[in-house]
Amino acid sequence: MNQQRIVTLLTDFGLSDVYVGVMKGVIAEINPSLQVIDLTHEIPPQNLIAARFCLMNAVPYFPKDTVHIAVVDPGVGGNRRAVAIEFSSGFLVGPDNGLFSGILSLNPAISAVELTNFRYWRTASPSTTFHGRDIFAAVGAHLASGVALAELGTVINPESLVKLPIVECREKEGIVEGCIQYIDRFGNLITNIPGNLVINKIWNVEIANVNIPGKKTYSDIPIGSLIALIGSHGWVEIAVNNGNAQSKLQLNYGDEIKVLLN
Amino acid sequence: MNQQRIVTLLTDFGLSDVYVGVMKGVIAEINPSLQVIDLTHEIPPQNLIAARFCLMNAVPYFPKDTVHIAVVDPGVGGNRRAVAIEFSSGFLVGPDNGLFSGILSLNPAISAVELTNFRYWRTASPSTTFHGRDIFAAVGAHLASGVALAELGTVINPESLVKLPIVECREKEGIVEGCIQYIDRFGNLITNIPGNLVINKIWNVEIANVNIPGKKTYSDIPIGSLIALIGSHGWVEIAVNNGNAQSKLQLNYGDEIKVLLN
Amino acid sequence: MNQQRIVTLLTDFGLSDVYVGVMKGVIAEINPSLQVIDLTHEIPPQNLIAARFCLMNAVPYFPKDTVHIAVVDPGVGGNRRAVAIEFSSGFLVGPDNGLFSGILSLNPAISAVELTNFRYWRTASPSTTFHGRDIFAAVGAHLASGVALAELGTVINPESLVKLPIVECREKEGIVEGCIQYIDRFGNLITNIPGNLVINKIWNVEIANVNIPGKKTYSDIPIGSLIALIGSHGWVEIAVNNGNAQSKLQLNYGDEIKVLLN
Repeated sequence: MNQQRIVTLLTDFGLSDVYVGVMKGVIAEINPSLQVIDLTHEIPPQNLIAARFCLMNAVPYFPKDTVHIAVVDPGVGGNRRAVAIEFSSGFLVGPDNGLFSGILSLNPAISAVELTNFRYWRTASPSTTFHGRDIFAAVGAHLASGVALAELGTVINPESLVKLPIVECREKEGIVEGCIQYIDRFGNLITNIPGNLVINKIWNVEIANVNIPGKKTYSDIPIGSLIALIGSHGWVEIAVNNGNAQSKLQLNYGDEIKVLLN
Repeated sequence: MNQQRIVTLLTDFGLSDVYVGVMKGVIAEINPSLQVIDLTHEIPPQNLIAARFCLMNAVPYFPKDTVHIAVVDPGVGGNRRAVAIEFSSGFLVGPDNGLFSGILSLNPAISAVELTNFRYWRTASPSTTFHGRDIFAAVGAHLASGVALAELGTVINPESLVKLPIVECREKEGIVEGCIQYIDRFGNLITNIPGNLVINKIWNVEIANVNIPGKKTYSDIPIGSLIALIGSHGWVEIAVNNGNAQSKLQLNYGDEIKVLLN
Repeated sequence: MNQQRIVTLLTDFGLSDVYVGVMKGVIAEINPSLQVIDLTHEIPPQNLIAARFCLMNAVPYFPKDTVHIAVVDPGVGGNRRAVAIEFSSGFLVGPDNGLFSGILSLNPAISAVELTNFRYWRTASPSTTFHGRDIFAAVGAHLASGVALAELGTVINPESLVKLPIVECREKEGIVEGCIQYIDRFGNLITNIPGNLVINKIWNVEIANVNIPGKKTYSDIPIGSLIALIGSHGWVEIAVNNGNAQSKLQLNYGDEIKVLLN
């Protein structure tokens, strides 16, 4: 392989400690010429729904063959599988806990392995708490350097990969059901209902016993009022004009939502 | 062109979401060998005065021909122009909203274009909310890869580039007028009055009906007192010894200030 | 030298200002092909104990010959020495204030110089407040580009390098004394007592007149209770199950602690 693959990192480790730097050290030790790009390290601790959303929204903008390492890993040290997955645009490396189920719903997996070949780990005796360093960073660096997926472990059925137990978006007789899949730093509630289901329609949202009209822009409503609109990620989103929808509605990740189409 | 140019990024996107990572994905897709350096992504949301200050202070330390992409863009989706500018040390890419007026006051523009050639955008149909991804990252990556400025769009007169409407620094009869152009995380108020106007003189500051003596160092005043001094960026700065000048004086970006020279 | 060395950065500058970006600009100006990796920039301001801990824990994961630039520098502008150090795994560059005494306790210095040769600085007249930009970034970039250590200044005795005045870990008659060397963002108190001194033993901790039993995992104690355990960094650590040990015990960096072995 001549062309180096890009490596990305997504974690809930934050940037105040040296965990992320250490993962980059492990990668550089294996192949110092790899380019590593941070997606984000500020996923709320152990929040798989948020991590799934961020990966699903970022991965499509990366070059073909990029290796995405994602470590939000509440089950580390337990018996969840460690996996690497090939899909049409590249590779995914991390715990098999549903983290990848969003991006794989858009780009199905082609093949997958459980990471059982410790020759590609940093150490054959990984810590019980930091597989990001001891397994995932090392495996990702080898994959980005041209090691074949099948070398990394035992082939598994991609159908067996864990999906997150969130309410999937489904439409029936003018009602679309879904859930909150992300809350941004402004308190906007981003749902898993794609904007194209409501665009150019008259619609409103029912959530937490509140009815919110679907609008085009903030300028359509007064300051402090609730609004439903298609947000910048392309999903139906609940916001407060100049305010915080999460604290106003007291809702959280995974909470259910209905869109009524008229 | 043999030598790769460096690309820098400055935004108000923060690091908790994947916006910055996505911009780097777009750049890597165009040219995976470009080196991308973050200036900062923590500009207070939509604060053009702060962004102008940070660019002006950082850009001079980068190699000739670096491409600086800056996206603080309250007018995105409206009719503000998107521009690329050549100046003596490199290139600037972003919205034409005054962001670049600080660095251009030090290093005048040589030539400028409005970004109208969508062949160099990520898509001919950019989103209305994220030109950082769809226009600026893509154009910056092409420019850093050797595309000529004139290829990117319609030539415009550099004199027509927007300047921020802040009180410029001016001296008259022993009085220097200026304004607050940055507030750092310690609450220090940094003005647009260069330190060389006061150095080796007796001087004091009038701001918000308070008179503050100009001093050399913190050790010249008691804990909790106000002090005016030349800060590490080289500008006259108002601080509180071991405290927060912004909350003590209740001042903000753009507020006017006078220095009296004796 | 064919193989480029990696450069790492560790500071207390934070990421909201452009200080770190400027250091990377200085490095890129000297050698644009160097790869720069952030360890962290969120060291609590001027906290040498925290910086020493983070370096000691991160450096061992980097490739041989990496150049680590660390700038937590309360004495900048005073008469503390600026130094570069060679040790078995690479190079250290920064102020001589004890920052490096942790990693050097694991990997002793081979040789050291005081940085007196201003040919390798960014400017022969460095600012009094930002040696990170004017001296350390520049010297680190030259070192990573193949300049010999001895070129950078006057040889000094590695024994003369400053050590931090913290209580070192010592064991005597079943009692291990040490201190708190790091407090993470969850308020866990990490000591300088290595986990291998207590592993597979019955042990408890005495700190601030409180006695805390040594346990294997959080599941051994109720929510809200104090626990002593071996943390993910490999050191004895005091935590509160689902809470904040720092605020519960009101302890701080450097505070002393005893482990009693039974």
